Amino acid sequence: MRPIDDAVRPASSFSAAEREAVYHAIMTRRDVRSQFLPDSLPDDLVMRLLTAAHHAPSVGFMQPWNFILVKSAEVRARVRDAFAKANEEAAQMFTRERQEKYRSLKLEGIVEAPLGICVTCDPSRSGSVVLGRTHNPRMDSCSTVCAVQNLWLAARAEGVGIGWVSIFREGDLKEILGIPDHIEVVAWLCAGFVDRLYDEPELAVKGWRHRMPLDELIFHDGWGQIKT
Amino acid sequence: MRPIDDAVRPASSFSAAEREAVYHAIMTRRDVRSQFLPDSLPDDLVMRLLTAAHHAPSVGFMQPWNFILVKSAEVRARVRDAFAKANEEAAQMFTRERQEKYRSLKLEGIVEAPLGICVTCDPSRSGSVVLGRTHNPRMDSCSTVCAVQNLWLAARAEGVGIGWVSIFREGDLKEILGIPDHIEVVAWLCAGFVDRLYDEPELAVKGWRHRMPLDELIFHDGWGQIKT
Repeated sequence: MRPIDDAVRPASSFSAAEREAVYHAIMTRRDVRSQFLPDSLPDDLVMRLLTAAHHAPSVGFMQPWNFILVKSAEVRARVRDAFAKANEEAAQMFTRERQEKYRSLKLEGIVEAPLGICVTCDPSRSGSVVLGRTHNPRMDSCSTVCAVQNLWLAARAEGVGIGWVSIFREGDLKEILGIPDHIEVVAWLCAGFVDRLYDEPELAVKGWRHRMPLDELIFHDGWGQIKT
Repeated sequence: MRPIDDAVRPASSFSAAEREAVYHAIMTRRDVRSQFLPDSLPDDLVMRLLTAAHHAPSVGFMQPWNFILVKSAEVRARVRDAFAKANEEAAQMFTRERQEKYRSLKLEGIVEAPLGICVTCDPSRSGSVVLGRTHNPRMDSCSTVCAVQNLWLAARAEGVGIGWVSIFREGDLKEILGIPDHIEVVAWLCAGFVDRLYDEPELAVKGWRHRMPLDELIFHDGWGQIKT
């Protein structure tokens, strides 16, 4: 073990330009379904994205994630079929008026994107009692979601688009990918180079739902308190 | 509704320096418990952090989050007491050997950090049937976690440290903050300026658990497949 005092270092501050770059990644990140270019992603770039994911915060430093990289077109076609089945079920849950709109939306690019990344969470990664998970059993999958978001922002900076597809029966993905029962599937990510992106979230552009005013979502010192 | 084609724009690429800034935020972000400076955070800075959070991806663009900003020292003291109670319960869950180590760790800076941010998820935000949540009811809280991670990375770029405290009985936080039953508490974040940070995750520095080799967490085309 290192002497602890050695490990606390001056936190290098960010220049205005560096700060701007971080905000630029955050504000221009999109959920991509249609803009993927077919070029495959170089291995070293993929490793940089996964390294970013691996540096996410994790409860008790358990690092519960795994990453299944799916280049196989055959496997991705099966995943797309699993989506299509679930998406038909999903469409039928909406009211008739909304259903037509729903069916008009393209919600995934599983086959078009050259790489699929299935991100999973292993709740057993560091034993049954985990520091920080004792009172919230979902903290391990929260950590895994932080890994996804790190990867997504790094991808934006690399010119790579990411689309998170969530319309699956989890069992279908587990069967296709041979994922053990005790592992949770957190995300299927479509990944590929992009040179064009929507300038607003696609669901806003297409009139599905609009951005809420941030002010209305902020309270002070207690729920519902809008003034201090 | 805007003409859709107008909304797809060339995706401005990042310079090497900008890309580096994004990775720098990701790699040097820490879960902060002890390095908070007492200076209060300017309102415009806090709004930039919340704007970053508000630009997270959200399932069906539902934006299920709320942010309760807690400056009140009295409220934070009550939150700290709720932590202390839960943390004593937590300590007793560990084996005797591990318990001593557990008790030696400082796991929160609720009172020291000048701002607490309680991040919540409202599952009812956009009706009961939500695009993308139809087959995974946890997608709304996943979206909220993405908002936390955006905020965390923006904070790093602003010289602000964030600590995510998860050792609470959710009911205690709800009572203290008056949060309605149907709202999920996703995170309590401690926020304050920092000028020193650990150069590795604190739990690694203190010997609780070490970083896993990334290579061991990556599979190809299916679970457990280590070669393509």
